[in-house]
Amino acid sequence: MRTPSFREIAKNFKVIFLDSYGVLKNHKGLIEGVPETIAFLREEGITFRVLTNDASRSQHQQAVVFDQLGLKDLDEEEIITSGMLAKQFLQHKIKEGKIAYLGTENSAEYILQSGLEHIAVRNIDLNNLDDISAFVFLDDEGFDWNTDIDTTVNFLRRKTVPVIVANSDKYYPVSKNDVSVATGGIAKLCESMLNKKFIHFGKPDTQMFNYAFEHINQNGQIFDKEEILMVGDTLSTDILGGNKFGLKTMLVLSGNTRAENADLWINSSGIIPDYICDSILG
Amino acid sequence: MRTPSFREIAKNFKVIFLDSYGVLKNHKGLIEGVPETIAFLREEGITFRVLTNDASRSQHQQAVVFDQLGLKDLDEEEIITSGMLAKQFLQHKIKEGKIAYLGTENSAEYILQSGLEHIAVRNIDLNNLDDISAFVFLDDEGFDWNTDIDTTVNFLRRKTVPVIVANSDKYYPVSKNDVSVATGGIAKLCESMLNKKFIHFGKPDTQMFNYAFEHINQNGQIFDKEEILMVGDTLSTDILGGNKFGLKTMLVLSGNTRAENADLWINSSGIIPDYICDSILG
Amino acid sequence: MRTPSFREIAKNFKVIFLDSYGVLKNHKGLIEGVPETIAFLREEGITFRVLTNDASRSQHQQAVVFDQLGLKDLDEEEIITSGMLAKQFLQHKIKEGKIAYLGTENSAEYILQSGLEHIAVRNIDLNNLDDISAFVFLDDEGFDWNTDIDTTVNFLRRKTVPVIVANSDKYYPVSKNDVSVATGGIAKLCESMLNKKFIHFGKPDTQMFNYAFEHINQNGQIFDKEEILMVGDTLSTDILGGNKFGLKTMLVLSGNTRAENADLWINSSGIIPDYICDSILG
Amino acid sequence: MRTPSFREIAKNFKVIFLDSYGVLKNHKGLIEGVPETIAFLREEGITFRVLTNDASRSQHQQAVVFDQLGLKDLDEEEIITSGMLAKQFLQHKIKEGKIAYLGTENSAEYILQSGLEHIAVRNIDLNNLDDISAFVFLDDEGFDWNTDIDTTVNFLRRKTVPVIVANSDKYYPVSKNDVSVATGGIAKLCESMLNKKFIHFGKPDTQMFNYAFEHINQNGQIFDKEEILMVGDTLSTDILGGNKFGLKTMLVLSGNTRAENADLWINSSGIIPDYICDSILG
Repeated sequence: MRTPSFREIAKNFKVIFLDSYGVLKNHKGLIEGVPETIAFLREEGITFRVLTNDASRSQHQQAVVFDQLGLKDLDEEEIITSGMLAKQFLQHKIKEGKIAYLGTENSAEYILQSGLEHIAVRNIDLNNLDDISAFVFLDDEGFDWNTDIDTTVNFLRRKTVPVIVANSDKYYPVSKNDVSVATGGIAKLCESMLNKKFIHFGKPDTQMFNYAFEHINQNGQIFDKEEILMVGDTLSTDILGGNKFGLKTMLVLSGNTRAENADLWINSSGIIPDYICDSILG
Repeated sequence: MRTPSFREIAKNFKVIFLDSYGVLKNHKGLIEGVPETIAFLREEGITFRVLTNDASRSQHQQAVVFDQLGLKDLDEEEIITSGMLAKQFLQHKIKEGKIAYLGTENSAEYILQSGLEHIAVRNIDLNNLDDISAFVFLDDEGFDWNTDIDTTVNFLRRKTVPVIVANSDKYYPVSKNDVSVATGGIAKLCESMLNKKFIHFGKPDTQMFNYAFEHINQNGQIFDKEEILMVGDTLSTDILGGNKFGLKTMLVLSGNTRAENADLWINSSGIIPDYICDSILG
Repeated sequence: MRTPSFREIAKNFKVIFLDSYGVLKNHKGLIEGVPETIAFLREEGITFRVLTNDASRSQHQQAVVFDQLGLKDLDEEEIITSGMLAKQFLQHKIKEGKIAYLGTENSAEYILQSGLEHIAVRNIDLNNLDDISAFVFLDDEGFDWNTDIDTTVNFLRRKTVPVIVANSDKYYPVSKNDVSVATGGIAKLCESMLNKKFIHFGKPDTQMFNYAFEHINQNGQIFDKEEILMVGDTLSTDILGGNKFGLKTMLVLSGNTRAENADLWINSSGIIPDYICDSILG
Repeated sequence: MRTPSFREIAKNFKVIFLDSYGVLKNHKGLIEGVPETIAFLREEGITFRVLTNDASRSQHQQAVVFDQLGLKDLDEEEIITSGMLAKQFLQHKIKEGKIAYLGTENSAEYILQSGLEHIAVRNIDLNNLDDISAFVFLDDEGFDWNTDIDTTVNFLRRKTVPVIVANSDKYYPVSKNDVSVATGGIAKLCESMLNKKFIHFGKPDTQMFNYAFEHINQNGQIFDKEEILMVGDTLSTDILGGNKFGLKTMLVLSGNTRAENADLWINSSGIIPDYICDSILG
C-alpha cells in the first residue's frame, strides 16, 4: 500500500482533490516543493481542487493567502470550503429574518451575503428574538468566549431555529505540537448542553465531496468518480469521506498522521486509504 | 406551519421525494388513499421518487411488493433504496477478494452482484481470512443472532477491511406499537464493541438525497433543489436529511410522529420541517 | 406517586439528602419557606445533608453564603460538595509535583491544600512541564476562555497526567431562563478534542452519595440506606444517582423539572423517583 | 513504573483486590502459578478479594468453578461480583410486582431471590404488563437472541420501569483471540434503540469498589484506602475504577493489555496505573 511517489500515482487520475493543511501547507507556511507539484499537475492536464474545512475566509481571501505564502497561481475557483456549503444551505432554506452568528464579521459578510441582515451574538437581545430566523457557527474568532458562548446557548434554549455549523472540525493546528479549539468544537459543546443536533458542514460528510464533484463537472466535462483521487493527511475526515463518496484515497504523512502511527491508526480505526505516500512532493 | 392539504403544497413543486413506511404504507399494508395520491402526482406531471432505508429487497422486488399491496403502477426506477448506495460503493471501491455479509442470501445476491464472490458470516473460517476483502451489514434476517454476531465481531478484530452498513436504521416498525432491531442497530453494537466507525448508507445522510437528485436529472431534464419537496414521517432521517441537502421538507403525521408529539419533538430536536400535514391523502 | 406534602413523607425517614439549587435556593436567592422546613427537620430529629455539585467554594464559604441568603444555622459539616471528593482523590493519589488547574484561585486554595504547589493554567510554560503531576478542572471562572482552554488542551496533548473534574455538571442556572457553561462542560469539550476520559466527581455518580453516607455514619450512629431519602429537582443527577445508590428518591418541581414536564421526562428517561412533590415547603 | 515483582509490591499493602479474568485465569483455565501466589498472600496475612463483572453465577458457584480449575481454598466470601450489586439494588428498591429478566434461569434464581416472582422475557405477554415492576439484564445466555431482544425493546417501549444491567461489560474473552457479546453490550444496543439510560453495575463504577471496601471493613478491622492495591489487566475498568476510588493500582500484562501496547494505551487513554507488572506470579 505504501507507494514511493505521488506523481506516479497521480498520473493515473484525471482529477485530484487536495486537503489544504498538512498537504499544501503546515504551521511554518507553504510546504517546500508544493508549487512544483501544482505545476506538475497543470502540465499533466490533471484537474484539481483544494477541499478545506474552513469558513473564516472566502475563496478569494484563501487564494490571496496562498499567494502570499508563495503559491502564486491558484485560481479562487480551485478552492472549495465548508463555508461555501453553509452559504448554499442558507440561500436555499432561509428566506427571511435575521441570521445570528458566532464568528468574525469578515466570515459573516461573505457567508451571509444573501440579502438577509445578520447579527453578531454579542448584539442579540435575549428578550427580543422575534426576527432571528437562523443561527450559524462560523469561526472560533471574533467574539468573547467568556460571554458569547453562554448567550448562544441561552438564545438556542429560547428559540428553535435551524442551526448551521460552517466548519465541523473540532480543532485546528497552530504549531508543530499545538492546536486550537475550532468552530466545530464550540458547536459540539453547545449541542451537548442543549441535547440537540445541529447541521454540520465539511469533511468527512460526503456533501463536501459532492459539491466538489459537481463543480468539476459543470463546464461540459464529465468526470467519473473512478477518475478522482482524494489526497489528505487525516483518516477521519479526508480518507473516510473520500472512501464513502467512492473515490480512491491517498493518505500523506506530511501532516496529522505520522509515519510511525499510520498502520496502527488505520488498523484501529478501520479507515483504509488506497495509497499511502510521504507527501505530494515526490 | 400546519397545512390543511398535501395537494395544495405539492402543486408548487416539480419533484417530490417520498419516504415509504409511514407515508405510503404502515403495518397494516398500503395506507388507504395512497394510489389516488400517486395518480394525482402523475396527472399533475410531478416527478416523484420513493426514498427508503432498506437493503433487503432489490428495486424490482420492492415494486412487486407495492403491487401486491395494491399500488399497481409503481415503476421500479421510481424506488431508491440505501442498498443501492451500498452496491454502488462496493462496485467503485472493492475490486477483488470475497465480500462477507450478514443478512439474507437474497439481499447478498442483488447488492453484491459485482462479479465478486460473497460469503455468509456462518461460512467464514476465522483461521483463513486471506481472501475476504470487505464486510457488509445487509439485513437483520438470514442468520443466527446467537452465533453470527460474535463471528462478525471476531472477524473484524482479526482483519481490517472496509465495513459497509447498507441500512443505517437502528429499528423498524412491525406493528402499531412494536419495532424490531434493524441492520443499523446490529452494526452499532459491533461498532461499540470494536470501537470503530463503519461506513453507513441511508437517510439522513445527504448522499441518499444526492443519489436521488442525480437520478431525476439524468434524463436531460434539469431540476433545481428549490423545486423539490421531501415528505417523510421521521424528523431525524427524512426531515434532517432533506433540510441539510437544501430541499423543502414536509413532516406527515401518519407514521412515527404523532400529532400530539410533533411540536414537542420539533422543539426538542431543533429539526424544523417547512410544512406539517396529516398525511399525503388530503 | 404525586404526594401532597413533603413533611408527611419526610417523617418516615431518619436522614434526608437535599440538593441545593432548585430545592433550597433558586436564581432569586433562598426559596421562601426553606428556613422553616430546615427547622422542622431539626425538630423532628431528622439528620440531613446538602449534596451539591460545586467546587467553587469550601464548605465554610458555602455556609456563609447560605447565612447571607437568610438560612442562618446551617453547619458547614452539613454541606457536601463534589469539590470535597476531588480534594480527597488528590490527597490519596497525588503525592508529588505541582497540580495545574483551571478555575479561581479561591477554589485552588481550598481544594489543592495538600502540601503540593499549584499552578494556574495561564502560568503553565508548555516547554517545561516536568514537575506538573496532575490537572484539575475546578471552576468556570478565574481564567480567560479565549486562551486558557487552548493551553489546557495542548498541555494534555503533551503530558499524560491524571485529570480530575471537580464538578461534572455541564451547566448551571443563572436566572429563571438562562444557564451558564459549567466546569463539566468545558471538561467535556476538552475530552472530545483529546479523545480521552477524565475522572469526574459529582452526582449522579454514586461516589458522591457514598461520601455522604459515610459522613453520617462516622459519629457512632449507624443509618441504613432504607432510612435515607434523596430530594432533588433533576432526574439525571439527583434521582438517577440516589436510585442507583439504593436510596428512596423524591423529585421536587421547584427547579429544573416543571410540573407540566415531569411525567413526560420520567417516561422518556426511564428515571423514576419514588415520590414527586411540588417543593420541600409543604 | 515497570516493576520486577508483584510480591515485592504486594508486601506494602494490607489488602489486595484482584480482577479474575486475565489475572487469575484465562481462556485455558487457571494461570499456572496462581495457587502459589494466593498461598503467599495468605502467609503474609494480606486480605484479598476477587472483583469480577459477572452475574452468571453466585458466589458459591464461582468458588466451585475455581475449585474445579485447581484453586482449591478460595472462600466464597472472597469473591465479589457485579451481580451482587444488582441483587442489593433490587432488594432495596423493588418491593412488589414481578421482575422480568434476560438471562439464564440460574442467574435469575440467585439474583432475584428477594421474595418476588421473576419472569423470563420469552414468557412476557406484551398485552398484559401490569404486574411487571422492573427489568434486569442478567446474562448473554439463556434466551433466543433472534426474538427476545425485540421483546425486551418492545416491553420497555410500553412500560417505564427501572432497568438494571447486572454486568456492564460489553464483551468477554472466549479464547486467545476471540470475544463474545456480553450482557452490557446487549443492554447498550437496547439503550441506543430506546434513547434511555439504564442503571449499570460493575467496574469501573466506584460502587463496585465501595462494596468490596465495606465488605473487608465489616468484621471489626478497619482498613484505609491507602492500604489497598487494585490489580487488573484492563485499564478502562480495573485501573480507571481503582484510581477513581482512591486506591493504588497495578496493571498486569497477563490478559487484555499486552506488554507491547501498555505504554501506548496508557498515554492515549490517560488512565495511569501506579505499577505495571508482567503478572501476579513473580
